[in-house]
Amino acid sequence: MKFTGRGVYVSPKAKIGRNVRIGDNTVIYDNVEIRDGSIVCNDCVIGEPLNAYYRDTSYENPPTTIGRGALIRSHAIIYAKCNIGDDFNAGHRVTIRENTTIGHGCSIGTLSDIEGDVSIGNYCRLHSNVHISQTSSLGDFVWMYPYSVMTNDPYPPSTDIQGGYIGNYTQVCVHSIILAGVRVGANCLIGANSVVNKTLPDFSLAVGDPIKVVRDLRKYVVMGKGKPYPWMHRFDRGMPWQGLGYEAWARQQPLEVTDRRLNGCDQAAAK
Amino acid sequence: MKFTGRGVYVSPKAKIGRNVRIGDNTVIYDNVEIRDGSIVCNDCVIGEPLNAYYRDTSYENPPTTIGRGALIRSHAIIYAKCNIGDDFNAGHRVTIRENTTIGHGCSIGTLSDIEGDVSIGNYCRLHSNVHISQTSSLGDFVWMYPYSVMTNDPYPPSTDIQGGYIGNYTQVCVHSIILAGVRVGANCLIGANSVVNKTLPDFSLAVGDPIKVVRDLRKYVVMGKGKPYPWMHRFDRGMPWQGLGYEAWARQQPLEVTDRRLNGCDQAAAK
Amino acid sequence: MKFTGRGVYVSPKAKIGRNVRIGDNTVIYDNVEIRDGSIVCNDCVIGEPLNAYYRDTSYENPPTTIGRGALIRSHAIIYAKCNIGDDFNAGHRVTIRENTTIGHGCSIGTLSDIEGDVSIGNYCRLHSNVHISQTSSLGDFVWMYPYSVMTNDPYPPSTDIQGGYIGNYTQVCVHSIILAGVRVGANCLIGANSVVNKTLPDFSLAVGDPIKVVRDLRKYVVMGKGKPYPWMHRFDRGMPWQGLGYEAWARQQPLEVTDRRLNGCDQAAAK
Repeated sequence: MKFTGRGVYVSPKAKIGRNVRIGDNTVIYDNVEIRDGSIVCNDCVIGEPLNAYYRDTSYENPPTTIGRGALIRSHAIIYAKCNIGDDFNAGHRVTIRENTTIGHGCSIGTLSDIEGDVSIGNYCRLHSNVHISQTSSLGDFVWMYPYSVMTNDPYPPSTDIQGGYIGNYTQVCVHSIILAGVRVGANCLIGANSVVNKTLPDFSLAVGDPIKVVRDLRKYVVMGKGKPYPWMHRFDRGMPWQGLGYEAWARQQPLEVTDRRLNGCDQAAAK
Repeated sequence: MKFTGRGVYVSPKAKIGRNVRIGDNTVIYDNVEIRDGSIVCNDCVIGEPLNAYYRDTSYENPPTTIGRGALIRSHAIIYAKCNIGDDFNAGHRVTIRENTTIGHGCSIGTLSDIEGDVSIGNYCRLHSNVHISQTSSLGDFVWMYPYSVMTNDPYPPSTDIQGGYIGNYTQVCVHSIILAGVRVGANCLIGANSVVNKTLPDFSLAVGDPIKVVRDLRKYVVMGKGKPYPWMHRFDRGMPWQGLGYEAWARQQPLEVTDRRLNGCDQAAAK
Repeated sequence: MKFTGRGVYVSPKAKIGRNVRIGDNTVIYDNVEIRDGSIVCNDCVIGEPLNAYYRDTSYENPPTTIGRGALIRSHAIIYAKCNIGDDFNAGHRVTIRENTTIGHGCSIGTLSDIEGDVSIGNYCRLHSNVHISQTSSLGDFVWMYPYSVMTNDPYPPSTDIQGGYIGNYTQVCVHSIILAGVRVGANCLIGANSVVNKTLPDFSLAVGDPIKVVRDLRKYVVMGKGKPYPWMHRFDRGMPWQGLGYEAWARQQPLEVTDRRLNGCDQAAAK
């Protein structure tokens, strides 16, 4: 019913894996690789050419990779020079600009806008309508909710671009803003409508404009629910510890991953 | 000029009413019914298949209904299993996920994103870029303005999803957030940039982060304009009392509708 | 690689300049003029018909103009009756409703939504996801950042629409709201997450909800950067004074432009 092959264009220079399905009117440009078992729905553009394409007749599209098992919903635009891991999930109308690196198991929601030169770790979840500015970076297992935004210009307009960083496991609630160059620690919870204008240590429960750390997140009690953070012990859907338990999974990880887990912010600073 | 029939796909299992017009490149999937006099503009998708479609070869698309007299602007995506009343109006690039019920006379603005499992009453107006999370519900005549959002997760990420509720006639201004599980009464006005973290009684004029009820909305005076609320007495464009007057219209309504009107929040609680 | 001519529709009543390139599946409707050297990428709609088209069989599309040297990214929708100057740049999925006037050298970012009856001066920069409501107007060199919004209804819902105004050179940071009818002076900096509910004089550094003027922007010191405002003396990328210097450029301007520059808010009031 859905994929009839109408209007599909796949560049002869693209490399399409086994069992890849491509929706109607979707375009796959030069030097794109889409790995086995991926589904790219209707009206998508993968490998959108960079600016230089429009003025340079010798333009060659840089390589773009979509890992195995992706499900990319309709109307997504992913620029050339992006490198996306396995099991990627994209909502509708996602825009991902060039030179963005995304790890394995990530999900980018409908209408989200990744401005390019961005680094996103593994198993991150960006819900609908998240905006990530250039040179921002996210650790692993970071979740961001609708209308949250990372900015990068400390005194606009300037050329002094400073993307922020969000540490592993941190949750950034709706309508929150990470200002230019700010580092948010690992295992934080940033409340809705916050403006994060300074570095936050690991395990911060922080809210407000300007942001205030109100508690160690490990001590945060939700009525009738106990202490729900760190969240990895009680939530596993789509996470690599699903069915295994977080502790068991964490023990199996190489030391460098464990270090990043325990010490998200410092580790990131050392990158 | 506009609808030339290029690239249109209508499933043989779809049911298209009389005088329905369908724009170029629009796709109508299995088991969609579009009733008389509706217009679906270019590049729309009606009856977008659910997740199961991608893995279940015996997948059958659940029924989807678009009522009479709809005007659905280009690039809208409406999933299967949605049920939309008459005189529906959708802006460009609207996304409505599965299992959403929308009453008669509603309008959903450009870029709005309805996450699914949502219930919207009659004559609601969602302006551009409103985000409604799963299991949220709206009464009748609710208006929401750009970048307002209903959330549903009280301690993210969790599986304890609790959609909020907004009562009849309530206005939710730009950039406001209704937190998970919160009930907003009928005939409220929620000011711009508010965070609603608790139940609000009917006729609240409420602002701030966190929200504070500052007045009974009926006593709110706008300079040179008197007391403009409840708004139904002074505004009728597109409302069922247009040209008739709100009081005259209200007297004609069945008792159950009147009850809901008078007592929006409690009535909703009883649903 | 990119523009293969598939699915393009250009009205015989459209006027296409020299060296104009048009992407696949793009539609150019009646009475659109696209001037020399412009590029309209894939899946765009230029000259989208107004509401009357759907009910009036004698409808004639009003004229639409796109100036020279435009680069309009894919999936943009620009309605009929828009008038856009030279060197226009549009991101993906931009929506510009009818009767919008945009000067020369402007840039409108991905997902931005201009509601129509809007006036935008020269060299303005709207980043991603900016929402401009009807009857709003911007001076020259105004920058707005993601999720900033201009509203127009002082007591919603009403028919008393009052678009706001933003003066020349002013910067409106992410998630800020200009309320209905508010005038923001020239050379202001509005901090992130602000709600501007009153007129602001020229050179305001203003933040908060509700907005407070915290300083004369000319006296604002950024650590290690001196006094970065007015910004025109230190930033020129894409501006008409690029390579020339702001002062040298300003001396060459006709007196009326200089007046507007020096006295943005009053000048705008006189329009």
